[in-house]
Amino acid sequence: MSNLIIKPIGIVRSEINEEMLKYSNKDIKLDHGLISHHRSNLKTQEILINKEYEECLDGIKDFSHIVVFFWTHKNSDEARQIKKVHPAGMEKMPIKGIFATRSPVRPNPICTTTVKLIKRIRNILIVEGLDAINNSPVIDIKPHLPSYDSPEDVKIADWMFRIMDEFKKFTKNSDANQTSEDSTFNMRKHPCLSPEQRES
Amino acid sequence: MSNLIIKPIGIVRSEINEEMLKYSNKDIKLDHGLISHHRSNLKTQEILINKEYEECLDGIKDFSHIVVFFWTHKNSDEARQIKKVHPAGMEKMPIKGIFATRSPVRPNPICTTTVKLIKRIRNILIVEGLDAINNSPVIDIKPHLPSYDSPEDVKIADWMFRIMDEFKKFTKNSDANQTSEDSTFNMRKHPCLSPEQRES
Repeated sequence: MSNLIIKPIGIVRSEINEEMLKYSNKDIKLDHGLISHHRSNLKTQEILINKEYEECLDGIKDFSHIVVFFWTHKNSDEARQIKKVHPAGMEKMPIKGIFATRSPVRPNPICTTTVKLIKRIRNILIVEGLDAINNSPVIDIKPHLPSYDSPEDVKIADWMFRIMDEFKKFTKNSDANQTSEDSTFNMRKHPCLSPEQRES
Repeated sequence: MSNLIIKPIGIVRSEINEEMLKYSNKDIKLDHGLISHHRSNLKTQEILINKEYEECLDGIKDFSHIVVFFWTHKNSDEARQIKKVHPAGMEKMPIKGIFATRSPVRPNPICTTTVKLIKRIRNILIVEGLDAINNSPVIDIKPHLPSYDSPEDVKIADWMFRIMDEFKKFTKNSDANQTSEDSTFNMRKHPCLSPEQRES
């Protein structure tokens, strides 16, 4: 199969300049010192769409949420060889295949984050909840559709719940400004979880 | 910004050989004759992951749903120049920017579909609900996480509801085998829709 070519369509502007999860010695490593900084900067980011694609945004304000596709551009070729990791760079988690994780370090380093669309001003999108670092190339924007993107009766790995519990511990006392992305902390109450995993 | 290189990690095997939505004269066109065929073949597809990435799948069965990233490979360079379309190729819909639609024809023709993971057999994933045609290159697999991928209180465009109503009309009497992807037809009842758009 031959390689495929992506042309970036825009760029992320964010106060976050350094990745929280980095490639390190055939694994990923979580920089604990950055967790609070990342979380407190999730409130507003800008996506600058290249001028030539500005008209591609027409109609986007009909949607409250969009899916942002971006490229984690700081990955080396060596990082893209990664096959298995400790999820979220936490050594206490069991090692899993990269396609069973949301690691930003992966063979094709494409990340998708579903964010709240606050405003569109010409070729600029103001969004909330984008966990991309400054200058990440943006490669696509799609409207988020619950009936297509949010299946019901979903089961997830137990270790994924444990990761969220760990993040909760790290930010509990350091983050006074609780923002809407805290929904990740209530992941056990999500209406799309299967009844056996969901807490009422 | 320089181009980015994607290396396919697998391929789709499906009974669907032709796209329902095709590029045509600076717009997209819906092939009505294919709607029923596509819907009746949404039940089972195979994703063949390249042998070198087999171990990247370890742990995937801890999740009931995965997000499949694939490339709509039949798009020409001309098709990738598209900026605005009639959504879903339906002329009665208002013309919208490509980033406000889920058109498979777009500047970077990456599609994501969230599917039910039925089974993993070594490097093969058996899934339900994948609307990719046979031989589509697969470029990433991620576990689906409700707390990350399924925001609540979502609003979508009115024309998106109207598209679903149109699809409903086309398949109403032609499709005896109702399958689980029919949830798209109940999109107005989705628990993640905002109360003002949701029907109880």
